[in-house]
Amino acid sequence: MIEDVFRSELMTLVRLALREDLGHGDVTTALTVGRDDLGAAAVVARRDLVLSGLDLALAAFREAGPELELSPGHDDGDRVPPGGVILTVRGRSAAILTAERVALNFLGRLSGVATLTDKFVALANEGARKAGVAPPRILDTRKTTPGLRFWEKRAVVHGGGANHRFCLSDGILVKDNHIRAAGSLAEALRRARDNGPHNLKIEVEVDDLGQLAQALEFRPDTVLLDNMDPPTLRRAMGLIRDFHAPGPRLTKAEASGGVSLATVSEVAASGVDYVSAGALTHSAPSADVGLDWL
Amino acid sequence: MIEDVFRSELMTLVRLALREDLGHGDVTTALTVGRDDLGAAAVVARRDLVLSGLDLALAAFREAGPELELSPGHDDGDRVPPGGVILTVRGRSAAILTAERVALNFLGRLSGVATLTDKFVALANEGARKAGVAPPRILDTRKTTPGLRFWEKRAVVHGGGANHRFCLSDGILVKDNHIRAAGSLAEALRRARDNGPHNLKIEVEVDDLGQLAQALEFRPDTVLLDNMDPPTLRRAMGLIRDFHAPGPRLTKAEASGGVSLATVSEVAASGVDYVSAGALTHSAPSADVGLDWL
Amino acid sequence: MIEDVFRSELMTLVRLALREDLGHGDVTTALTVGRDDLGAAAVVARRDLVLSGLDLALAAFREAGPELELSPGHDDGDRVPPGGVILTVRGRSAAILTAERVALNFLGRLSGVATLTDKFVALANEGARKAGVAPPRILDTRKTTPGLRFWEKRAVVHGGGANHRFCLSDGILVKDNHIRAAGSLAEALRRARDNGPHNLKIEVEVDDLGQLAQALEFRPDTVLLDNMDPPTLRRAMGLIRDFHAPGPRLTKAEASGGVSLATVSEVAASGVDYVSAGALTHSAPSADVGLDWL
Amino acid sequence: MIEDVFRSELMTLVRLALREDLGHGDVTTALTVGRDDLGAAAVVARRDLVLSGLDLALAAFREAGPELELSPGHDDGDRVPPGGVILTVRGRSAAILTAERVALNFLGRLSGVATLTDKFVALANEGARKAGVAPPRILDTRKTTPGLRFWEKRAVVHGGGANHRFCLSDGILVKDNHIRAAGSLAEALRRARDNGPHNLKIEVEVDDLGQLAQALEFRPDTVLLDNMDPPTLRRAMGLIRDFHAPGPRLTKAEASGGVSLATVSEVAASGVDYVSAGALTHSAPSADVGLDWL
Amino acid sequence: MIEDVFRSELMTLVRLALREDLGHGDVTTALTVGRDDLGAAAVVARRDLVLSGLDLALAAFREAGPELELSPGHDDGDRVPPGGVILTVRGRSAAILTAERVALNFLGRLSGVATLTDKFVALANEGARKAGVAPPRILDTRKTTPGLRFWEKRAVVHGGGANHRFCLSDGILVKDNHIRAAGSLAEALRRARDNGPHNLKIEVEVDDLGQLAQALEFRPDTVLLDNMDPPTLRRAMGLIRDFHAPGPRLTKAEASGGVSLATVSEVAASGVDYVSAGALTHSAPSADVGLDWL
Amino acid sequence: MIEDVFRSELMTLVRLALREDLGHGDVTTALTVGRDDLGAAAVVARRDLVLSGLDLALAAFREAGPELELSPGHDDGDRVPPGGVILTVRGRSAAILTAERVALNFLGRLSGVATLTDKFVALANEGARKAGVAPPRILDTRKTTPGLRFWEKRAVVHGGGANHRFCLSDGILVKDNHIRAAGSLAEALRRARDNGPHNLKIEVEVDDLGQLAQALEFRPDTVLLDNMDPPTLRRAMGLIRDFHAPGPRLTKAEASGGVSLATVSEVAASGVDYVSAGALTHSAPSADVGLDWL
Repeated sequence: MIEDVFRSELMTLVRLALREDLGHGDVTTALTVGRDDLGAAAVVARRDLVLSGLDLALAAFREAGPELELSPGHDDGDRVPPGGVILTVRGRSAAILTAERVALNFLGRLSGVATLTDKFVALANEGARKAGVAPPRILDTRKTTPGLRFWEKRAVVHGGGANHRFCLSDGILVKDNHIRAAGSLAEALRRARDNGPHNLKIEVEVDDLGQLAQALEFRPDTVLLDNMDPPTLRRAMGLIRDFHAPGPRLTKAEASGGVSLATVSEVAASGVDYVSAGALTHSAPSADVGLDWL
Repeated sequence: MIEDVFRSELMTLVRLALREDLGHGDVTTALTVGRDDLGAAAVVARRDLVLSGLDLALAAFREAGPELELSPGHDDGDRVPPGGVILTVRGRSAAILTAERVALNFLGRLSGVATLTDKFVALANEGARKAGVAPPRILDTRKTTPGLRFWEKRAVVHGGGANHRFCLSDGILVKDNHIRAAGSLAEALRRARDNGPHNLKIEVEVDDLGQLAQALEFRPDTVLLDNMDPPTLRRAMGLIRDFHAPGPRLTKAEASGGVSLATVSEVAASGVDYVSAGALTHSAPSADVGLDWL
Repeated sequence: MIEDVFRSELMTLVRLALREDLGHGDVTTALTVGRDDLGAAAVVARRDLVLSGLDLALAAFREAGPELELSPGHDDGDRVPPGGVILTVRGRSAAILTAERVALNFLGRLSGVATLTDKFVALANEGARKAGVAPPRILDTRKTTPGLRFWEKRAVVHGGGANHRFCLSDGILVKDNHIRAAGSLAEALRRARDNGPHNLKIEVEVDDLGQLAQALEFRPDTVLLDNMDPPTLRRAMGLIRDFHAPGPRLTKAEASGGVSLATVSEVAASGVDYVSAGALTHSAPSADVGLDWL
Repeated sequence: MIEDVFRSELMTLVRLALREDLGHGDVTTALTVGRDDLGAAAVVARRDLVLSGLDLALAAFREAGPELELSPGHDDGDRVPPGGVILTVRGRSAAILTAERVALNFLGRLSGVATLTDKFVALANEGARKAGVAPPRILDTRKTTPGLRFWEKRAVVHGGGANHRFCLSDGILVKDNHIRAAGSLAEALRRARDNGPHNLKIEVEVDDLGQLAQALEFRPDTVLLDNMDPPTLRRAMGLIRDFHAPGPRLTKAEASGGVSLATVSEVAASGVDYVSAGALTHSAPSADVGLDWL
Repeated sequence: MIEDVFRSELMTLVRLALREDLGHGDVTTALTVGRDDLGAAAVVARRDLVLSGLDLALAAFREAGPELELSPGHDDGDRVPPGGVILTVRGRSAAILTAERVALNFLGRLSGVATLTDKFVALANEGARKAGVAPPRILDTRKTTPGLRFWEKRAVVHGGGANHRFCLSDGILVKDNHIRAAGSLAEALRRARDNGPHNLKIEVEVDDLGQLAQALEFRPDTVLLDNMDPPTLRRAMGLIRDFHAPGPRLTKAEASGGVSLATVSEVAASGVDYVSAGALTHSAPSADVGLDWL
Repeated sequence: MIEDVFRSELMTLVRLALREDLGHGDVTTALTVGRDDLGAAAVVARRDLVLSGLDLALAAFREAGPELELSPGHDDGDRVPPGGVILTVRGRSAAILTAERVALNFLGRLSGVATLTDKFVALANEGARKAGVAPPRILDTRKTTPGLRFWEKRAVVHGGGANHRFCLSDGILVKDNHIRAAGSLAEALRRARDNGPHNLKIEVEVDDLGQLAQALEFRPDTVLLDNMDPPTLRRAMGLIRDFHAPGPRLTKAEASGGVSLATVSEVAASGVDYVSAGALTHSAPSADVGLDWL
């Protein structure tokens, strides 16, 4: 469940979605269904999914019918089997029908994200287990749908992942284009280390092992190993360990760049601390949910 | 290009997206890049795509740097090959870096929708051509991302598709749940026909041929043939033709329900007028676009 | 009563109106009335009216005094005689006085629209009855008060009328200026027919019988007979019937253009299906409602 | 012309009106008019009017087509004869057609208010001249359209009238219901006088001459003579003069309550300082303006 | 307590403040405190203060935890001793911690204003008592924090002061720069007197006794004696009395300009009716309030 | 100058402030100053100040008069002597007068913050220099004015300070109440370390040396030494150094709690890395700025 303090944000989003879907009213329902006719319906998973977006779906129904009786069958983060009832709704049929599409759109998209994340996590865990390394955290990116970042990042958590930066102000991540714009990796890192806010860690993106070696000199909190294949990742991890040896490895490593369901297991086997994937939010297929009249 | 009258809507969305991505500021860029350093970058297609979202990307850069020089290399609706330059940006490096992610997120999602639509259209045309029937219009649905419907529906048009209803008030579509709530298909259609606004056509969803026969008696403008396999679709088309014979077929037919890249060709071969697919908007993978520093 | 899903829109409008009327506070009431003094008042019709706007009036009082006891004496759409009590309010006098003007302004304007519509309907029905034709639907137009279209169109329904398009996207109406801009009526209609969305009917405005004949060739769903006097309207209806004979008359006819209380009866006698009048919303005198202290 | 500082308010209102009128787009214009076709049109007065709302109309066209060439033929406050050209618009035909209705709706309503005010002023001046008294100011009331108060009050000024309070915080007006809630006129006035803000004058509503005599004891700045017939108004004016004699008459008098075009001349002849009429804003018929294609 | 009709304004401000303070969530609390852990805390005055802002603090806690049990120990306007409990909060610890800073920020600033006002009032009363004149009202100015005027002006009232104009439309105050822009004091006052709205009094700022004499000829309702030292103030008061003698002094006098805690007593002793001080709102040190865990 | 991407936020705030100050219009200026009269004025520092808020002042004038000629005499961060001209404005007098107060209110408050910060920085530097330690960064807190945090934190930077967290999501700061709610310092720190986002450092508040010793075991990035007197601060610094010896001191130290102009020098002499003070933003007296007519 969403923290109460974000409830007004949630309502703003749900009302925006309803307004967008309703225009000046649900003409078909107004014509075909009696204003006070009662009915009941179930929101049902048509295929396996990990649930996310329940608050939004509940709010959509509540907004269309404050008196509707809403009985969730699951919580966000639950695994729901095909046919599983996510939510039962009872009350005025017209209100149910009017909110149906908006509720399903939220559930479909967000459960889609959670479900895909869950698959990444499972594969990463398996890859790490086989390789005898600690499983990495699966992280999202800033490649989210404009307007839905907060909710898509929650969906990643529901799917068992964790969140990278929410926005450009809650983390320092020196990327390739910053390095080019600054002139050199060294110059970019020096500026960040000397002037950065004292609450933020410093992460730097490196493209190859040479750059990694250069970066380590600045003792960044994290290095982002961009677009490296698994053997290179393993060498990179060795390089980082060696740099800190014999002490503990103080620099964390994040693998990123085109990681997919096909590759995540092997990436995880390299022993990195984090694996981030834009696909979690930008390319998750919608989860298949429908509304069945009871 | 967007009509001017929607420009303030566009700006609202772009500012929302920038706000969401910026928090209280782009800390990394502020630390690493000189305030007045100049640079240039190209937004590039990493793979084949059909472009959509250019206005939004331009506005994101313009908002971050009103003085940036923006040179689009393509228009919305264009097919862009791998490596094709969508847009060149010159000016203050900090402004370019700050807007980068938002611009790419819009382009990725909307070009993703356009590109998938384009594939549906091509396959449908081929299926129809082989069967010797007129190619159907590929239609979207209301299964869009909350907050982005207007833009996703434009992306469908950029991909060669057409738009179904934008919202519940600009079309009458009597669906299974309306029929159940109304008690019977006949009752639902009678109400819609007798009391509907005089500017809206009437479409009705039918699940099988029996229901289709019943529906035709009410001479709906369109029937939505839901989840029928190709042979059933062909029988349905025959039934509709026979109903109107020897006059012209006045009732249009839309095939819908789980149509995918794998099936759209055969569905189109059935001779239906429209094929609608939720996947166009709810499950299009993001198009792969990046920003390369020049 | 308004559908629940529009309640947040209603609150936005009511709060806007209160903000506009309150400035930084009701100085007079604060000075003259004790903060917790109790009182009661009745909102009363000073003359015959058809009620509309009750939800908005209730919300205005509720917003100024959540604890106020509100007892409506009538529903929207009711005919209220002079002296009839629309609403009784009991509770803190200061809250009642603060919301009074806003509540009355909504009731006055919207009941004004409903009351005028009711007069049009009655006269149209009488004219049709005498002429032995079916009574036309009385329709509104887009000539509404900026910001109040939704509510004024509801008021038309409360007065017994029906709604024409709510906005430019929920119907196709090819008007004189479109024809001029397109070059010819034929060209304009051809474009609309071939490319229009499949959910919208096509209506075309014609100024004389020659244009009507031309238009009928395109089998529009409706023709708008603009500014025709009753004899011309009758001839137009004959022309339309002849065009479709011996089949049923498939093209509907709407009379429009300067229809007033003085002329609506004769217009209705011509047998048209719809009569639309901008005056319903743009020139309805306010209904006379007041608040009496009990 | 509106003060620049209110320009953002103006844009908010114009965009609201366009949004309301456009839905997701002007389907008819998109279908029938070429995107870049050029045209020209004139906004024309169909009958005599006093102009108001020009800024809003200009902004509506500008929003739909920033490049449109707009040539006003008149200013707010001008008397425009039938056929007089208020505004010429040249540029993209589609932009002109899309903004047409919104521009006309603003002009119609606000010029309606200005035109009716102008008639009140002329009749009041004539009544005063014949009676040999100074002509009263014609004042509006708070009986305005929710959301449009600022603009309707400007229209009153364009018509030659003046403004009463804009809202409940910029004037003290002790009305009948305040008196009832306070217990007595004396108590209400005592409280207002002793505790009121030092920048606001005090006005009190009286229903008869007895109440007027009571009120004068508190030396209010203004008395509102509510619903008095002309002979009573004349007696009231005598009473006020006598109270202050032999000094100058320090208390001003406002006549209010159901003043109409039929009675305003005689009311003005009574020698009151102000005449206020709710009808100026709540019941002004729309001015008749249209758009002619050139 | 705030009037109900302003509750939606209050909520808008509180949500703005929470949004500003929360970003995408209270990371520390989420990490360290169990979601359903219960706790209790007291908002406590660390030093003497006059309370203001209670509604806002309550709303901040309520927004973060609708189920929190809130027990105010004082009302706005109360004098609270060091250690005095302003408010006790019981319920979910996480909700308490999340709203803490916003609640304290409102209380600190607004109680700061009330507390400083209280000191001005006490000193003014004492100065007046010793001089044997009526104590002046202590007034605020328009020198308030952007966005908080309404609340800071309430705080002034909680501290025993009164409000000058809330904004530029609820009072006429002809200041030095208006006089310069108009050309002369006489010209400025003539225009204001002849054309001003009939509900607003006229106040004029004068810098010396010569200007005062000039201003009195126009019988303004109030003169603002700007930046005069106490002896000059006393002479000014004499001049005003003489002007009106032998009648009552009809013109009120306001002393303004750099009045501080050090000077207010002597200023009050001059017999002016009002003393206004920008410092009440623009330079009040925050009241010292904290949250103690119970 | 503000980054362009925040320009729409700036305009929102400036418009809010103007709306708040204007009500329905500047009555006095409209009465006394000719609509097109030209004039010029200078915004002048009446006392020494460090400038902040220039963008906002410029925008206020620009909004009231887009054609005004604005010539800044200084930049944000500049030290301005008494009589120094911050900004010259030329153009329509009415526009200048209408925006005056809002422009001055922004400049007064924000320059007040910058000026106070500058004093803290100077004293801290001097204290550190005398003690032979590196000067600490002067940091702000979250004790800012609701709605103005972004701008007040910029003002701190203009005054030579640096920013602590902007909001609860861009830093982990475990405070006394989190420790109490979590049960123990150890438990709170363990949870933060194990589950915290990988981009955020961890800071913990300690009240005494015992707690400090406990905290150091968890190797926090920073310790906040709360309300310690200078001798205790020095002992704390020794303790931290000893903990890390012989390696470099990896844990940073922030002194906080009631630091004032009177104590900051001695606090800085203790060798802490950061000194934070709520007073910078919650109790800065307004800088004295005025507008002089030229």
